[in-house]
Amino acid sequence: MNSTPTANDAQPQDKAGNADRYSDVEIAALWRALRERRDMRHFVADTLPEGTLERLVEAAHLAPSVGYMQPWRFIRIRSREQRERIHALVEAERLRTAEVLPSRNDEFRAVKIEGILDCAEVLVACLMPGREAHIVGRRTLPEMDVASLGCAIQNMWLAARAEGVGLGWVSFYDPDALAALLELPAGARPLAVLCIGHVREFYPRPMFEDAGWGKRLPLASLLFDERWPADADALQTTTPPAY
Amino acid sequence: MNSTPTANDAQPQDKAGNADRYSDVEIAALWRALRERRDMRHFVADTLPEGTLERLVEAAHLAPSVGYMQPWRFIRIRSREQRERIHALVEAERLRTAEVLPSRNDEFRAVKIEGILDCAEVLVACLMPGREAHIVGRRTLPEMDVASLGCAIQNMWLAARAEGVGLGWVSFYDPDALAALLELPAGARPLAVLCIGHVREFYPRPMFEDAGWGKRLPLASLLFDERWPADADALQTTTPPAY
Repeated sequence: MNSTPTANDAQPQDKAGNADRYSDVEIAALWRALRERRDMRHFVADTLPEGTLERLVEAAHLAPSVGYMQPWRFIRIRSREQRERIHALVEAERLRTAEVLPSRNDEFRAVKIEGILDCAEVLVACLMPGREAHIVGRRTLPEMDVASLGCAIQNMWLAARAEGVGLGWVSFYDPDALAALLELPAGARPLAVLCIGHVREFYPRPMFEDAGWGKRLPLASLLFDERWPADADALQTTTPPAY
Repeated sequence: MNSTPTANDAQPQDKAGNADRYSDVEIAALWRALRERRDMRHFVADTLPEGTLERLVEAAHLAPSVGYMQPWRFIRIRSREQRERIHALVEAERLRTAEVLPSRNDEFRAVKIEGILDCAEVLVACLMPGREAHIVGRRTLPEMDVASLGCAIQNMWLAARAEGVGLGWVSFYDPDALAALLELPAGARPLAVLCIGHVREFYPRPMFEDAGWGKRLPLASLLFDERWPADADALQTTTPPAY
């Protein structure tokens, strides 16, 4: 952190002489993945190259976890029959959600929410059983196991995007029914049905945005100073959609 | 997906002629960040270049969220007094955790769990209030808001690492006390105290690993076929540490 900044320095972050900083090309590559990653629901009939799925699980497994508990488990669905059963659970919950939405039911019904029958691979991500024994970093925030799984799936999502592979996270299903189908032990919980595979094209924007369901909030509405602002509502802290 | 693979193809993933695939250099850059990201607790006294914090929040905001709810809100802590109050909450919970651990108390006490007073910036990540109105993708899995926040923080973590900036996620505190301190509205929940700043060096391995607290599970113990295996215990599905 000792180098002297110069007026012509092309890399602002280098002004501090930060030896830990990646090259501009590397930083740009990461940001490309951050910006181009999409929650995909349209896939092409295709298989993934050998080893792809294992590599994506490896990316997930590089994620941080609270108290180093590594709570994630993944089940690769092999048979068409199992896929169809999972799809039926998801379709039932999609219809149920549409029924109980207080409004905008038709708009919701128009959005495709999964590609389970079309994608190359279906992977179910679960929280392991026995999590209650892990209290380090979770004694007052037990949901930290869920947050860790979120980190893991985000790693996988970015790694998939970089390989040109789409991933969609489906959370429409009765978790107990899915747990029974996959013979999960008591205490395990399925948190994601992941659809993974090649796509015709990555959506240029989030699908929910293109569908008019919601739009990205401005940064000013979600970054506050020192405390929650009294006028937060005026900053649009209730996000779209209003049903 | 039409090109013909050749035996000399240096890029295995290109065999399928996948036009969506990033260059090898870009993929390597992403994997470098996945591998080198660490949960940091040691920081150097230093400030971050102007705009860094906003850029990290922008990275977070590129994350996916269930039903496009964008549940994340961030509070930047400005004053030394507020920092010291947060530090006091964390220290109280650290001691409380050590007290109630059934064993390994001394080992836990030896692990540094935060750098709140030393890092350049403290950012508190919260779930917004009013989340119960968002049922798309959450009707049966209400914890999906937590998972979305996990994805957002992982984005931020990777973006920080690429810039040579450390980030540590602290989850040791009474969330109600922290909510009161930050004047959170009813229904909002603080899920992370993030310590952000330059570091002397990034840990070569997770700190919990170096401290002997746990070790990384083998991939075979967390990737299953078709259903949860009856012999999962033999595959070490209960992670370290056993207290």
